[in-house]
Amino acid sequence: MDSPGNDSGELSIDLQTALLMSLDTLPSQPLPSPEEGLVERQFATLFEPPHPLVLESGEEFGPITVAYQTYGTLSPQRDNAIFICHALTGDSHVAGRRRPEDRKPGWWDGFVGPGKGIDTDRYFVVCANVLGGCQGTTGPSSINPATGEPFGPDFPFITISDMVNVHHALLAHLGIDKVLAIVGGSLGGMQVLDWVVRYPKQVGAALVFASGARLNAQGIAFNAVGRRAIFMDPLFRDGRFYGEQEKPRFGLALARMVAHITYLSEQSIEMKFGRRLQHSNELAFDLRKETEFQIESYLHYQGKRFVERFDANSYVALTRAMDYFNLAQSHGDLVTALTETLARFLIVSYTTDWLFPTSQSSELVRALSAARKHVTCTELDSPYGHDAFLIESELPKLEAIVRPYLARLYHERAAQKAT
Amino acid sequence: MDSPGNDSGELSIDLQTALLMSLDTLPSQPLPSPEEGLVERQFATLFEPPHPLVLESGEEFGPITVAYQTYGTLSPQRDNAIFICHALTGDSHVAGRRRPEDRKPGWWDGFVGPGKGIDTDRYFVVCANVLGGCQGTTGPSSINPATGEPFGPDFPFITISDMVNVHHALLAHLGIDKVLAIVGGSLGGMQVLDWVVRYPKQVGAALVFASGARLNAQGIAFNAVGRRAIFMDPLFRDGRFYGEQEKPRFGLALARMVAHITYLSEQSIEMKFGRRLQHSNELAFDLRKETEFQIESYLHYQGKRFVERFDANSYVALTRAMDYFNLAQSHGDLVTALTETLARFLIVSYTTDWLFPTSQSSELVRALSAARKHVTCTELDSPYGHDAFLIESELPKLEAIVRPYLARLYHERAAQKAT
Repeated sequence: MDSPGNDSGELSIDLQTALLMSLDTLPSQPLPSPEEGLVERQFATLFEPPHPLVLESGEEFGPITVAYQTYGTLSPQRDNAIFICHALTGDSHVAGRRRPEDRKPGWWDGFVGPGKGIDTDRYFVVCANVLGGCQGTTGPSSINPATGEPFGPDFPFITISDMVNVHHALLAHLGIDKVLAIVGGSLGGMQVLDWVVRYPKQVGAALVFASGARLNAQGIAFNAVGRRAIFMDPLFRDGRFYGEQEKPRFGLALARMVAHITYLSEQSIEMKFGRRLQHSNELAFDLRKETEFQIESYLHYQGKRFVERFDANSYVALTRAMDYFNLAQSHGDLVTALTETLARFLIVSYTTDWLFPTSQSSELVRALSAARKHVTCTELDSPYGHDAFLIESELPKLEAIVRPYLARLYHERAAQKAT
Repeated sequence: MDSPGNDSGELSIDLQTALLMSLDTLPSQPLPSPEEGLVERQFATLFEPPHPLVLESGEEFGPITVAYQTYGTLSPQRDNAIFICHALTGDSHVAGRRRPEDRKPGWWDGFVGPGKGIDTDRYFVVCANVLGGCQGTTGPSSINPATGEPFGPDFPFITISDMVNVHHALLAHLGIDKVLAIVGGSLGGMQVLDWVVRYPKQVGAALVFASGARLNAQGIAFNAVGRRAIFMDPLFRDGRFYGEQEKPRFGLALARMVAHITYLSEQSIEMKFGRRLQHSNELAFDLRKETEFQIESYLHYQGKRFVERFDANSYVALTRAMDYFNLAQSHGDLVTALTETLARFLIVSYTTDWLFPTSQSSELVRALSAARKHVTCTELDSPYGHDAFLIESELPKLEAIVRPYLARLYHERAAQKAT
């Protein structure tokens, strides 16, 4: 990838220096005790009457409850806030455990925490579930106050900008006017890009991983397949299934299966499963055996697990928001859209990501360069495809870039204010 | 791709020379009149009692009707026969028209015919529908003589080898002991490879396009998604839907939609559709509008058209046969499997094919080289992904290789016999 005025060698020395410099200037926090280490999901209710959110569709909508989690401490200068945007099926639970008995920590626990890539000893980290989601923020499965029933298909059509506006209002509610950085991968990266276009003077840096300025047509195609699977499930009942005993699990599981393939790479699937069989060394010669190969068993398992935690209407709404995302559209072209922002950019792609290939990041970098923005970019080598930014073993590579990048950013912003 | 002892420059001169040489030696045919130009689908019934086909599963099965079409004239020496293996959803109707009013000719009409890539003025071309298919050869939708009803789920489990054994029997029935060449792309290419392993001394050349010695795990994954879609369709009724008014069209259409994405490339989808809308310049903000983007409309149309011509049980059976294909398995490894054959090989892959990427062809070429076979290989540059071998505008590239290749082959085999 073309990175104006940077090659990776030069970059790493720069960042190393910046990191050493900034270690003295950042607030240090004591390590939390085990109880303090537990994270609480909090809620804020915004856009209450008579101040609804005006959606991109023109429709007015409110009130909106937002589920969010915070990590670390906001500095007295309120200058160390980092907002994390989650991907399609993520949630506010980005790191840590909510209960001591939780088997698994948050979805980016390897990257967000004390001393980690996004160091919660230094930064005040906020992560919130998106509008239209199903993990605490108002979405299709929430109760419609007008009817006392879940919204279902009556939930309004939402876009990435609507999600961003809700999170912007959350930060205002938390007393944060400017954020040091907005960080996100995939659909989260789209939100990051929308943030800097929509709130050009309130974001210090935009960190965009495995994402792009729009979903390409192949991505739209796969999303269309997923939604078709949900719509064809008789138990979906046009989205009015909440009162029913049986949830539309087959369609949603199928949608997840096909999406999951696009998150992996040919290489990683081949490495992890190849043509190995699940339970035997002998082929069964049985057409009804759906989980004979390990890759089949894995996908079926992923589908099954997914329906336990996700809502079919949310899946439909969020994938469509992803399809609609086109950063250039609001301003006619990408360069113009990105002209106003004061943010600097860190763009990361992965060699084997074919859902958001490096060409998408390159397009973004070219536009940012044309708009005379400060942009750092890198293509990380990984066999794990689109999911690489979430995979534990791949996080050190990301951390090696992000940690010094944030440290320098924080140091420079602090220096700017001091002068 | 590594081609032992050949680079493309050397190859093209060689083949050009061979072509000129062979023009004199090949039998010339008069051009057919318009009526003669019509192709007739013929049928042969094989494996009649007491000689059933022993399937790879061990089960015995018969009788088997085979639908086939022939083009050109078998030479008195019976040395100019070329057998074409069709891909997953193809059929025996490889070229020409069956009725004067047919809107479209056969599926490879741009490549097979008088003066074309496979020149029916020179060669006797046979193409037959596969066992388990639904275009005339015995398959799940055929009548089970034991019950008088369609087989449905009682149709036996079949493999690529079973298909090949049936076609081998068809050629024997037509009085053809040795074929000049077997040609096929994708699933057709798998059949070609199985042919040379199974009948090592009866094939002059194996022409394998956009295929490989096995389906990779990603391919198995996409097939699993397609079958899941069919199985979850309530109208599929475990495969016993033939007597019903409503066919399981939703599941089969969905299977086709996802498969169709894998036949294209990111590049071709972007070129052909991009993010363009189907009917408007304005976004609809309507979740139930499934065909808003052109790519969606295209995939839905492909799904709809497909169910008019294909059987859901056949789709399940043939995709599973594809999953099971593993040329190395019967002999322990690929080199050993390929050791015995007398055939020479032409292996063609396409730059943007990600279902059977060039790495798959390379693996095959390495094994063939290790087995000391005569192998010619090339990666053709095309934006059209896996489907490139079927796309009209891409056929001249294939023809430029195949036509002289076959001409030299025929010339050399004739010369061998003369000495």
